Amino acid sequence: MGMARRKTKRAIPNHLAARLERCRARMADGRLSAYVVSAPTDQFYLAGFTGEDGVVVVTARRLYLVTDGRFTIQAAREAPWAKAIIRKAGIGAELSRLQLRHRWCRVGFQAEHATVKQAAIWRKAVSPARLTQSKPITAELRNRKDPAEVVAIRRAIDVAEAAFKVTCRTVKIGMTERQVAARLEFEMQKRGASGPSFPTIVAVGSNAALPHARPGSRRIASGSAILIDWGATVDGYRSDLTRVVFVRTIRPQFRRMYIMVHEAQRRAIAAVSSGVEARMVDRAARSYLASVGYGKAFTHSTGHGLGLDVHEGPSLARRGSATLEAGMVVTVEPGVYVPGVGGVRIEDDILVTGSGCEVLSTLSTNLDDMVIRG
Amino acid sequence: MGMARRKTKRAIPNHLAARLERCRARMADGRLSAYVVSAPTDQFYLAGFTGEDGVVVVTARRLYLVTDGRFTIQAAREAPWAKAIIRKAGIGAELSRLQLRHRWCRVGFQAEHATVKQAAIWRKAVSPARLTQSKPITAELRNRKDPAEVVAIRRAIDVAEAAFKVTCRTVKIGMTERQVAARLEFEMQKRGASGPSFPTIVAVGSNAALPHARPGSRRIASGSAILIDWGATVDGYRSDLTRVVFVRTIRPQFRRMYIMVHEAQRRAIAAVSSGVEARMVDRAARSYLASVGYGKAFTHSTGHGLGLDVHEGPSLARRGSATLEAGMVVTVEPGVYVPGVGGVRIEDDILVTGSGCEVLSTLSTNLDDMVIRG
Repeated sequence: MGMARRKTKRAIPNHLAARLERCRARMADGRLSAYVVSAPTDQFYLAGFTGEDGVVVVTARRLYLVTDGRFTIQAAREAPWAKAIIRKAGIGAELSRLQLRHRWCRVGFQAEHATVKQAAIWRKAVSPARLTQSKPITAELRNRKDPAEVVAIRRAIDVAEAAFKVTCRTVKIGMTERQVAARLEFEMQKRGASGPSFPTIVAVGSNAALPHARPGSRRIASGSAILIDWGATVDGYRSDLTRVVFVRTIRPQFRRMYIMVHEAQRRAIAAVSSGVEARMVDRAARSYLASVGYGKAFTHSTGHGLGLDVHEGPSLARRGSATLEAGMVVTVEPGVYVPGVGGVRIEDDILVTGSGCEVLSTLSTNLDDMVIRG
Repeated sequence: MGMARRKTKRAIPNHLAARLERCRARMADGRLSAYVVSAPTDQFYLAGFTGEDGVVVVTARRLYLVTDGRFTIQAAREAPWAKAIIRKAGIGAELSRLQLRHRWCRVGFQAEHATVKQAAIWRKAVSPARLTQSKPITAELRNRKDPAEVVAIRRAIDVAEAAFKVTCRTVKIGMTERQVAARLEFEMQKRGASGPSFPTIVAVGSNAALPHARPGSRRIASGSAILIDWGATVDGYRSDLTRVVFVRTIRPQFRRMYIMVHEAQRRAIAAVSSGVEARMVDRAARSYLASVGYGKAFTHSTGHGLGLDVHEGPSLARRGSATLEAGMVVTVEPGVYVPGVGGVRIEDDILVTGSGCEVLSTLSTNLDDMVIRG
């Protein structure tokens, strides 16, 4: 009483504190004095910061945020628990200064993110400490989502699904792929997405034979099969879904493709459970599609992890060596592609649980529900 | 006559042939047997391919495109002049195979793009050839735009400007930043943009004191100053513009900020000409803003090159050492930011010419034209 108290710095939220604790335990395993985090999504994961062009530096006791003048206020708002260093020159110069102060021995960095050019500068900057490729610490931490992350992914799915339903009602014969994609992205943003998870794919007819087609000027006609692969980014977390819709009628060839892919997806999802090797999920879809003559038409992996990045661990690929664990969120998205004809892919987002899995996405995949009026 | 001719492979277009020729000349200067191009925009620049997750390999006589099964058809469509290699495993395995066939000596790669992890794999793959950091060959080529590129950038500007005009008419009191950003991106896509050049910034009031603010849930009110930084991507090329609009009235503090930034921009643009050092353009804006008391409020560089990437060379920064050349396209975008109050930035896209420059963007920057109804 009587004495003015200075405002105390905002305490670090529990979920970030828990992540940093796990990060520091792994740093200790690797005998790292410091860990230079350059991947933006990892910076958000560990420190809550969404700026660009900087790095987060984690040490046993401190958390630094090296950024530039464009992000001074943003750093104070988003990550007041980090010591912000507003750099005047390069990141290297600031790492040098920190090295002088702390006398680090081994400094870890993200070899899967940092460029050769950056690493060369940082290597000199932290000398005589050794700059060393650490194991992918944050990637491993991020594979299993904490409950708040699953909630965020669910929100990203909700937004994507609601936007899809509205967009399907606005699709009319004569619209271009690009117009449909624009509408879908607009509807997601109206519902709170900061943007799409990745460039939205809307591919009509034979364009859908390109698994990563860009929406162009091809127009929708009666009888068109339209492959739509889209997702929303909400508070940093991403959803990733694919549906194929048919305008008024379904051509027999597509009907057959759809039924086969649908069954492949069902089998792959049924294979998802904690303790299962990722490649077994891929095999469930792939061996089925091969058995019905679509082996060579399935040109990609069955799925991938999903979270702050649209592609993260684990990979549900032919050689996917990870073992699924409860809390992982993955896509399951088999597809078949026939050049000159088109493609069918069905993709949902799945939470691995102790006893199996939960399909987080809720849009129907039944063939009969895939017909739109146009 | 009488004999069926096989369709000949599509010839490489002149603009790509010219770029490859210049690239190969630089490879020869650096005694490179091959050049591994991993940056996606550079792959598009040299080969016309827009896929992901692969590399383009340029040799003295050949052009390879290493990609995966998702892009088989796209590679044939977009870059039939390149020899497509559909990889089953990693890029490294394919580089190994090429090395066995061609017996390269020195293989250049993009140290400013390739990650440390990729480079380590490629280094082993091309052994006994040496993997070597080349000078940034494509970045240097790309600094000066050829006429077709300037046409493409103009289109990207047209789309962004038309969308902006329409969006300003739809802005209403009570709308959120995010709603305005969503509308602007939608209007760009409707006009042929494949997407925004970068995440659109719409910042109301004090949020505009963050030069890279994300649009959020803050609502527009009478008297709001709204900073909008946006651009369109059209056929791969990008525009980048900023305007500040005022809802119904302009508060005196903003009026003063605007007038100063406007004059700073005028001076910087007047300084743009071929033969001028980039830092002189920065100095023109910076010294003026310092003279009127906004030296510390101008927290970033004056501009940057623009093309297939939203940030490329040359940098119009305090220490920008490049010399401007005819054909370069740069942004000129001074700004001042006052914490708690807001910010003003005015940004146009400028073509450097032999005798000075041409402002490619056409939206008014006059303060009186910046008032909207809301």
